[in-house]
Amino acid sequence: MATVVQKFGGTSVADAAKITRAAGRVKKARDEGYSVVTVVSAMGKSTDTLVDLARELSDNPDKRELDMLMSTGEQVTISLMVMALKELGIDAVSLTGWQAGIRTEAVHQNARITDIETDVIESHLKEGRVVIVAGFQGMTPEGEITTLGRGGSDTTAVALAAALKAESCSIFTDVTGVYTSDPRVVKEARQLSSISYDEMLELANLGAGVLHPRAVEFAKNYQVPLVVKSSMVEKEGTIVEEEASMEQNLMVRGLAFESAVTKVTVEGMPNENDTLSNLFSALAESGINVDIIIQQVTENGRINVAFSIHTQALKDTLAAVESRREELQYTNVRHFDRLAKVSIVGSGMISNPGVAADMFRVLSRQDVRVQMVSTSEIKVSAVVEEEKMVRAVEALHTFFELDQRVELNV
Amino acid sequence: MATVVQKFGGTSVADAAKITRAAGRVKKARDEGYSVVTVVSAMGKSTDTLVDLARELSDNPDKRELDMLMSTGEQVTISLMVMALKELGIDAVSLTGWQAGIRTEAVHQNARITDIETDVIESHLKEGRVVIVAGFQGMTPEGEITTLGRGGSDTTAVALAAALKAESCSIFTDVTGVYTSDPRVVKEARQLSSISYDEMLELANLGAGVLHPRAVEFAKNYQVPLVVKSSMVEKEGTIVEEEASMEQNLMVRGLAFESAVTKVTVEGMPNENDTLSNLFSALAESGINVDIIIQQVTENGRINVAFSIHTQALKDTLAAVESRREELQYTNVRHFDRLAKVSIVGSGMISNPGVAADMFRVLSRQDVRVQMVSTSEIKVSAVVEEEKMVRAVEALHTFFELDQRVELNV
Repeated sequence: MATVVQKFGGTSVADAAKITRAAGRVKKARDEGYSVVTVVSAMGKSTDTLVDLARELSDNPDKRELDMLMSTGEQVTISLMVMALKELGIDAVSLTGWQAGIRTEAVHQNARITDIETDVIESHLKEGRVVIVAGFQGMTPEGEITTLGRGGSDTTAVALAAALKAESCSIFTDVTGVYTSDPRVVKEARQLSSISYDEMLELANLGAGVLHPRAVEFAKNYQVPLVVKSSMVEKEGTIVEEEASMEQNLMVRGLAFESAVTKVTVEGMPNENDTLSNLFSALAESGINVDIIIQQVTENGRINVAFSIHTQALKDTLAAVESRREELQYTNVRHFDRLAKVSIVGSGMISNPGVAADMFRVLSRQDVRVQMVSTSEIKVSAVVEEEKMVRAVEALHTFFELDQRVELNV
Repeated sequence: MATVVQKFGGTSVADAAKITRAAGRVKKARDEGYSVVTVVSAMGKSTDTLVDLARELSDNPDKRELDMLMSTGEQVTISLMVMALKELGIDAVSLTGWQAGIRTEAVHQNARITDIETDVIESHLKEGRVVIVAGFQGMTPEGEITTLGRGGSDTTAVALAAALKAESCSIFTDVTGVYTSDPRVVKEARQLSSISYDEMLELANLGAGVLHPRAVEFAKNYQVPLVVKSSMVEKEGTIVEEEASMEQNLMVRGLAFESAVTKVTVEGMPNENDTLSNLFSALAESGINVDIIIQQVTENGRINVAFSIHTQALKDTLAAVESRREELQYTNVRHFDRLAKVSIVGSGMISNPGVAADMFRVLSRQDVRVQMVSTSEIKVSAVVEEEKMVRAVEALHTFFELDQRVELNV
């Protein structure tokens, strides 16, 4: 009997009625003859409520204890999901992360899965039970409870699918699939029937938000076909797999964007070997995520560095740079707010060097000035003025024909 | 370094401020030089909230899944308690029931502790940490999460005190100790400085409510000195130990009472060997708790049986008896509502056969008619009219001089 893994996020199990609806999705897969393993998140905003409780007691709660606290959220959902399934006449059993054999490294709040001992799950499947597993959590070899950090439940589901050699891993969420761009902003955005791991990875990293990049990476490494679909409406989802089978003729597959970007420039540093390393070590030590980096040597032989950050991190960034003033010997630090990043993604780009040029031409025609650029094999990102972001995105969406349904339905 | 075990009930950890106050009590014991193990219950009414959630999904939720669900309540409290302790500068670590090595039989919702593997707790104590343990829960040899049923956290605390050979086990609660009677009803009720296990057991069974009888029995079996004290105010509590040291001259030590008692009579059954057994099997199968039982053979050689139950169980009781009508061959079933049970407890009674007579005389003088009687070595219970309960209790409290402080303070 083939096995499928499913995952329901917090909004899909936010209350009793939604849990019952999700249970109906589980039953459907069971009725189709599959062995089913289902991963669930904590209900709605319940994790936030727990963290708020912790913050009432401590400004900087102990990470081990936060894991102890937060892992209860998923444990609540697994038991309720089994109750809902039993009401539908489906035999099921709930397992916490540690009961399900999910072993992690000994890091709290952001542990990685090292290994899954599938014996317990497999013996329940053999006896015909649906197995409901708490997402986002695991156990260290020493018996400590850990959580996996952001996107943890997606990662649990993909890791289980890999360990159980499942036919597929369905991620049920509050959207119907992966879109060419954010449909809340781009009216013409349409749902993709399939997309490759690498393209999904770029889109996930660019903040498309449907799937966590860690989970996509895991799926790519273990070649687990992912299906993103709605837990609310019955509709075909988007398949994430090695080759985006029917849409290869599309050069650009998706378009991501984010606002609240700030560019910081550190100017006039000496041109020495360790200048860049010193600067970015200082930022890393303060926990600042730097995105695009541009280095430039000036006419008088000094170095200027520009980098982009999330606007929220500006204060910490300036403090970190200021604290290394003596070491870095810069003359000037400046910052430019109200920027945005617009990115096009598609594996078809690899063999089409003109895509970046196309992108810049479209932006120029729209009077959008590009402030920074970054590229990968299958992505081009441009930092632009925030107020022109939507205009830029819509123009790019039309130019690259993302609104045209060229794909064949399989 | 001597070890003490403490336990804080739900009302003592109902919110962040109360958890911080309880943490202060833990710190105090630590500052006095003890190794401290603290057992906590779920916050306030949080277990009820979880059970309500389950009932939204199922009228009869699976017991294994209820254990999975309910055990999260204590897990939340342990992590918050550690955070509160760390804010006070105390090194501490939280352990779930399974992490603390609490092994139970494989029964859900009402498991008994079979064994405690203390290695993990002891290694944390050795490193100078306070250990916070989730009450009410354990794990079966197969790795299933169980809960211990009513009074479970008290039992966890006493069992840990026994396993760790602790000097004492303090039960912090919302009253300041064990009283001669319920101070909300009996104005003259006063707090006892000490009481014996057997007396406490009778009082606990009679619904005094401060300590669960299972926990008292456990403490008696392992000779763990219990201290009942307030988590809110600084005051000496009541010590429960083998010999109630300084109050032995008191014949009656406490007075318990409960309302909503119903007497049921089943009349005219044949006088056969298995009549009683058939009747009470029928009641047991319906899960009805029977308290006092009186059997009487009538002049024509038939049997009348009277028994008392909680009024809430009346409907089920009548249905159970009715369902066995053919087998039991009774002529009549009657019931008498609005009764109450009044009990006096004291190990001094053992050598004082006149105590029951005294009790009946006091009741008679107050025009209180006794409808049923039950006795043990250290207890006499009388079922009386509910409306005369308080009058009876007050008269007995005065007669047996429970308002007189004859005890010496040690």
